[in-house]
Amino acid sequence: MKGQFASRMARIQKSFIREILKVTQNPDVISFAGGLPNPKYFPIEAIKAAADKVLSQRGATALQYAPTLGHYPLRQWIAQRYGQQTGMVIEPDEILITNGSQQGLDLIGKILLDEGDVVLLEAPSYIGGIQALSMYEPEFWTVPLGEDGADTAVLADRASQEKVKLFYALPNFQNPTGISYSAVKRQDTARIMQETNTFFIEDDPYRELRFVGEDLPPIASIYRDSGFLLGSFSKIVSPGMRLGWIVAAPPLMEKLIIAKQGADLHSNYLSQEIIYQFLADNDLDAHISLIKAAYWRQRELMVAMIEETFPPDVQFTLPEGGMFLWLTLPGGLSAMSLFEAAKAQNVVFVPGHPFYVDGGGQNTLRLNFSNTDEAKIEAGMKRLAKALRGEIARSSEQYSVNSIQ
Amino acid sequence: MKGQFASRMARIQKSFIREILKVTQNPDVISFAGGLPNPKYFPIEAIKAAADKVLSQRGATALQYAPTLGHYPLRQWIAQRYGQQTGMVIEPDEILITNGSQQGLDLIGKILLDEGDVVLLEAPSYIGGIQALSMYEPEFWTVPLGEDGADTAVLADRASQEKVKLFYALPNFQNPTGISYSAVKRQDTARIMQETNTFFIEDDPYRELRFVGEDLPPIASIYRDSGFLLGSFSKIVSPGMRLGWIVAAPPLMEKLIIAKQGADLHSNYLSQEIIYQFLADNDLDAHISLIKAAYWRQRELMVAMIEETFPPDVQFTLPEGGMFLWLTLPGGLSAMSLFEAAKAQNVVFVPGHPFYVDGGGQNTLRLNFSNTDEAKIEAGMKRLAKALRGEIARSSEQYSVNSIQ
Repeated sequence: MKGQFASRMARIQKSFIREILKVTQNPDVISFAGGLPNPKYFPIEAIKAAADKVLSQRGATALQYAPTLGHYPLRQWIAQRYGQQTGMVIEPDEILITNGSQQGLDLIGKILLDEGDVVLLEAPSYIGGIQALSMYEPEFWTVPLGEDGADTAVLADRASQEKVKLFYALPNFQNPTGISYSAVKRQDTARIMQETNTFFIEDDPYRELRFVGEDLPPIASIYRDSGFLLGSFSKIVSPGMRLGWIVAAPPLMEKLIIAKQGADLHSNYLSQEIIYQFLADNDLDAHISLIKAAYWRQRELMVAMIEETFPPDVQFTLPEGGMFLWLTLPGGLSAMSLFEAAKAQNVVFVPGHPFYVDGGGQNTLRLNFSNTDEAKIEAGMKRLAKALRGEIARSSEQYSVNSIQ
Repeated sequence: MKGQFASRMARIQKSFIREILKVTQNPDVISFAGGLPNPKYFPIEAIKAAADKVLSQRGATALQYAPTLGHYPLRQWIAQRYGQQTGMVIEPDEILITNGSQQGLDLIGKILLDEGDVVLLEAPSYIGGIQALSMYEPEFWTVPLGEDGADTAVLADRASQEKVKLFYALPNFQNPTGISYSAVKRQDTARIMQETNTFFIEDDPYRELRFVGEDLPPIASIYRDSGFLLGSFSKIVSPGMRLGWIVAAPPLMEKLIIAKQGADLHSNYLSQEIIYQFLADNDLDAHISLIKAAYWRQRELMVAMIEETFPPDVQFTLPEGGMFLWLTLPGGLSAMSLFEAAKAQNVVFVPGHPFYVDGGGQNTLRLNFSNTDEAKIEAGMKRLAKALRGEIARSSEQYSVNSIQ
């Protein structure tokens, strides 16, 4: 209708996380909110050398329009790395370079979803994924997430229904919970996707950030025909360059290319050239080892602070990698109230309920441990413990008052 | 339905232009097909210096996640330039940085269009725009394009209908025709959009490439409430960096931000920092003067070659700027047949019919004059004239045979 926005816009709100990030611009605030890497470990000098080399040697190409799929040597590099790490055989033309894995979610939603199609989400799930897919007006159903991955009995039941087109999952160090799928859950998920003819998005930006435990194969290495495997340079090199990728079989890739052409022709080519040059001239594994060692120390400290300073009935996950911890407060406490109390103490996090599409999670919250140094983790967790004790005291008073009445 | 793509994918084909571009990878082929700038004029050294400065001074910021709207100083720069050049008063927060103006089209389609809404297009119109908007399954109606812009009588009639939500136009040196709107047509278009409460996309990537004649104000400078003004660094600095922008009033911008967050969080921040540094440290006007002088020579030569070597009944536009000429062949000749004949002579262009959503344009074609140097224009136009004479001869023979029978 004239002068009106599309109906899809009525259902979608601004990202709550990005709104919180505005608070964090105050330098007094310690933030465990954003899902940001620690900038201390950005390979700035190496990127500068790579940029210089690219612009000296291939400037006219790097600044020109480029193929939709992306820089061929970069796609070849990604394919080879999957081969080395997982044994997967991937052709460079089965890889599309995107603006971070976030754009992958948008493009996949665009090629797959008609209004009313059902998308299965883990509960809780990544807010940015929910936001991207919401634009195509699906119905969301959820699958509970346990300590070792999605509840595959529920998944099998739901995926078998005709309306269900797609399952969206983050099997490694999930955002927001930090949970990873066990080997068995990966096998079962692949089998269920195949048997029920369901498309599968395997959103995998954190895979290379494993601190402890054993690497497990991508679900796409077991069954790939209807799968989209998303990867990203955001957590291992730089998020500001906005470069990620989708791995998909040729019939799916053909549609993705059409969607990518319409969306922005191709991803930033100068940055593709620079990141490829960086990868060619540097030891990425050594660089990732540095990041992992730091994040592991940061995670260990955050867990130690919870154990030392939080009430014992606060539950928390123990992720083997990635960037997030997930807390469950004692029943009756609201993470949103705690957020306000914590903000007053100059520490912020992300309350858990926006990660649930169907309500719930009111007493959960996400803590990021990657973006802050150890001194700030120590100080911030003390502030948070103080805010939490305040909330518990307030809650018991209310409870007492209620009991008396 | 299970295992099926979204219904929108059934209507959309791969970009014909990008398919043609594959042919042009053969170095023997002279291409007037792509809409590419001449790489000879890329400011490679200045971009290299800017990249070095950004990474030396602000590396950790440039490589990190960044605000959705884009780099503030860059948006301020764009706003100030509109102020100086057009008198428009634009706040930096009314500017969203996008991945080229192509992404602007995708985001606007996403926030505005429900299936079946009517989009008015100039006939012919930009293929990439048609492709981006098609994803949201509108119905397309067309408005004929005359020498001085859209037929505003038809526009007023069509825009007044309830189903019509949006008019998409390129008022300066249009892709594909090179046609520009007169001052009167700009006034009339603004008035019609306002009176009929129709959203308006003013796609304006070529405005700064005027060789001759007088600058005319953007339609958005007359009426902006329901307008989206798209600009781009692709034609004046570098397309490979994929940076453009949307100017829109706050109520529209609020929705665009939501769509941009879902699409890719924000545009490549390193490139935003680099392009801003380039603009701060260099004289863009002097750089654009170089480009314009070259393109004007190239356009002059291409027109001279048409006048000298083509049959006199071939019609062509005389654009005052931009990158394209538009040819209309004598009735009965097919640009698609000519394309095949020309390809055999190692010269290519884009046949006109894909620029028409409702058929027609079979005897039209687009010639790009920006991407090739003068020697290649001379050689390529001779090859094209030869192919054209062959087609005319073949067509008269067929005509003779048909007449005899």
